[in-house]
Amino acid sequence: MSRFLQVVAVPEAVRAAVAIAPATAPETVPVEQSAGRVLAAPVVADTDIPGFDRSVVDGYAVRSADTTGAGDAVPALLRCIGRVTMGRSRKLVIRDSECAYIPTGGTLPDGSDAAVMVEYTEEAGDTILIKKPAAPGENVLLRDEDFRKDETVFRPGRRLTPQDAGVLAACGCARVTVAKKPVVGIISTGNELVPVTVIPGPGEVRDANASMLAAWLSEYGCVPRLYGIVKDERSAFEAVLARALPECDVVLLSGGSSKDDRDMTAGVIAGTGEVLIHGIAIAPGKPTIIGRIAGKPVFGLPGHPASAFVVLIAIVRPLLDTMLGQKKPLLRTVQATLAENIPSQRGREEYVRVRVENGTATPLFGKSGLLNTLVKSDGLVCIPAGYEGLEKGSRVEVMLW
Amino acid sequence: MSRFLQVVAVPEAVRAAVAIAPATAPETVPVEQSAGRVLAAPVVADTDIPGFDRSVVDGYAVRSADTTGAGDAVPALLRCIGRVTMGRSRKLVIRDSECAYIPTGGTLPDGSDAAVMVEYTEEAGDTILIKKPAAPGENVLLRDEDFRKDETVFRPGRRLTPQDAGVLAACGCARVTVAKKPVVGIISTGNELVPVTVIPGPGEVRDANASMLAAWLSEYGCVPRLYGIVKDERSAFEAVLARALPECDVVLLSGGSSKDDRDMTAGVIAGTGEVLIHGIAIAPGKPTIIGRIAGKPVFGLPGHPASAFVVLIAIVRPLLDTMLGQKKPLLRTVQATLAENIPSQRGREEYVRVRVENGTATPLFGKSGLLNTLVKSDGLVCIPAGYEGLEKGSRVEVMLW
Repeated sequence: MSRFLQVVAVPEAVRAAVAIAPATAPETVPVEQSAGRVLAAPVVADTDIPGFDRSVVDGYAVRSADTTGAGDAVPALLRCIGRVTMGRSRKLVIRDSECAYIPTGGTLPDGSDAAVMVEYTEEAGDTILIKKPAAPGENVLLRDEDFRKDETVFRPGRRLTPQDAGVLAACGCARVTVAKKPVVGIISTGNELVPVTVIPGPGEVRDANASMLAAWLSEYGCVPRLYGIVKDERSAFEAVLARALPECDVVLLSGGSSKDDRDMTAGVIAGTGEVLIHGIAIAPGKPTIIGRIAGKPVFGLPGHPASAFVVLIAIVRPLLDTMLGQKKPLLRTVQATLAENIPSQRGREEYVRVRVENGTATPLFGKSGLLNTLVKSDGLVCIPAGYEGLEKGSRVEVMLW
Repeated sequence: MSRFLQVVAVPEAVRAAVAIAPATAPETVPVEQSAGRVLAAPVVADTDIPGFDRSVVDGYAVRSADTTGAGDAVPALLRCIGRVTMGRSRKLVIRDSECAYIPTGGTLPDGSDAAVMVEYTEEAGDTILIKKPAAPGENVLLRDEDFRKDETVFRPGRRLTPQDAGVLAACGCARVTVAKKPVVGIISTGNELVPVTVIPGPGEVRDANASMLAAWLSEYGCVPRLYGIVKDERSAFEAVLARALPECDVVLLSGGSSKDDRDMTAGVIAGTGEVLIHGIAIAPGKPTIIGRIAGKPVFGLPGHPASAFVVLIAIVRPLLDTMLGQKKPLLRTVQATLAENIPSQRGREEYVRVRVENGTATPLFGKSGLLNTLVKSDGLVCIPAGYEGLEKGSRVEVMLW
């Protein structure tokens, strides 16, 4: 292994990662569990929605022409011929100077073209006093006003919201075809790592990254699988990797932080697969490895928590988006004004943690070995490779956690 | 039942909802599954983190005083006395004019106080040429720089992020004490409703609201439980409610849209419990019922999808936040400029769906019976009860979906 990495630019690394995204077959889930999943097939309305002209008020179904000029002083007098009931209802027909009581959501009877709120009416036996004129279509939801039969309601690649679940239900989708959640294995390596349950001895640290990566992957719509800590012994490492590869769609090697450890990771990947990239022009996160074994993407992530997290977001996420068929990354951004200068090194993308308050982004400069700046910050600002920094007062886009 | 509702103001309705929040016992979950959960007990660091002075670079551990004035032309010459290895390492001591190879993350040997990147050094047998001065502490993470032993790291009420999971792992929390997910039952009522799997006949609509409510509740960190559709028969309704109450912490009655249906809902709640509020000064969503049966909050939600969704967010969510012990609502907001006037009726809070693009919020006026404005919009703008509308050009806060 060379002492220095041959780094590639971030866009090239992203292209390399996306290019090796394995195809996975979609699956179906119950509609009420579909929020957050990525739609894998178009959804077409199988019927007009709501499907019939509906009143949106409790009141009276009328012929609007019969109410022209109606007011408090001179109400229109209409004969009530019955009540619309909810659901499958006896068929009523409204003729000149007639009306029918209609509840909210009831079917507008034939002959009527508007509904008058009960608040603007008065009963006098069979006669109803209508004290306000109704325009044609007033207080009515037309039969195809929400969605039209055969209309494409959602296209593949959409990350579904709770409201979407409502629309899917209205369209008759009791089960929804969505992208399979990528199964992502996490193998921790590094002689300094001990499990969370162990009190670290001298020179040892707990494996924080695996939990952080797993938690992020779960939130992003993946299934993380933890394979524990492998000490820096090549044979043990290879054995765990051989177990993980058939069980996972992607494998993340959550590295120890030392160069020896990174070299071993690269060596193990090269032994049974290929190392595509070793070193990315990104800060933090330079010593990242992208490889492939048996058709599965394998990433060697840096050991520093902030570095691992930035690489997860900047490099691994686009691969996951591709696997999910997701059109837009699930990325919330906000515009803010920089509170301080941020220096940067031309030639690499720099990701700086920032806290955002009242439209101002304050950089939290801190070593990438720290967890505390990750939890104190609200997101990242990316300084493109062509810049030598950003000046105080610049407008920046913050990628929110 | 009176023909008109006695409405109460939104803040009063929220207070009433929050006041009946039942207490639930916390539970523990594995740290890697903790993201999105609300912390129920303080977390204290059980050790200094990282726990020892660590190098953040691959290079040489040095006494900084030995490197004063070092440069390319006149390097400092230090004798390398060995290599720091990762994890539990042989104890090295650095004396005057000595150094030791140290990998990233390695323990700084006694006597040394800085690390020099390998890029600024050159090997000449046992002698290392140091070509750059190191300040005391340079490239070193101090033993308690991330977190200090006994420091309170997180307080209860925090909704945990993936990065938090990393910190919890570093603090030795293999399992995390979090608020129990509220179990929320959903009973759909209304003679016009048919299940999602059925093709609606004349006057019938599919039950879209139950799926939408369930999907939202799942995303918000609750466990929804669907009890299907009850036709407007009081005994059937009471039987399902009697089954749901012991199984759930909260019950939502997803109403049919008619007044009869709402009246029956209120009657059923009053029959075995108490109706606290019937009618809220909110639009859409006025015919909402808040009640309590056997110590469990029971909501009668309006039948229109947009009304049900607004009430869920404005009235039910504060109750769930209270049950979760959540300090801040899980609510993303963005500032925007109104693209059009929004009229509003003084005396009620009005929630208008808006689409947000490039800092501009465009209202989507549409009947509350429509689902399509819910999916085409990005969030809600609230017009407070004391206003008669908002003018084009006003700065508004948009509650994003």
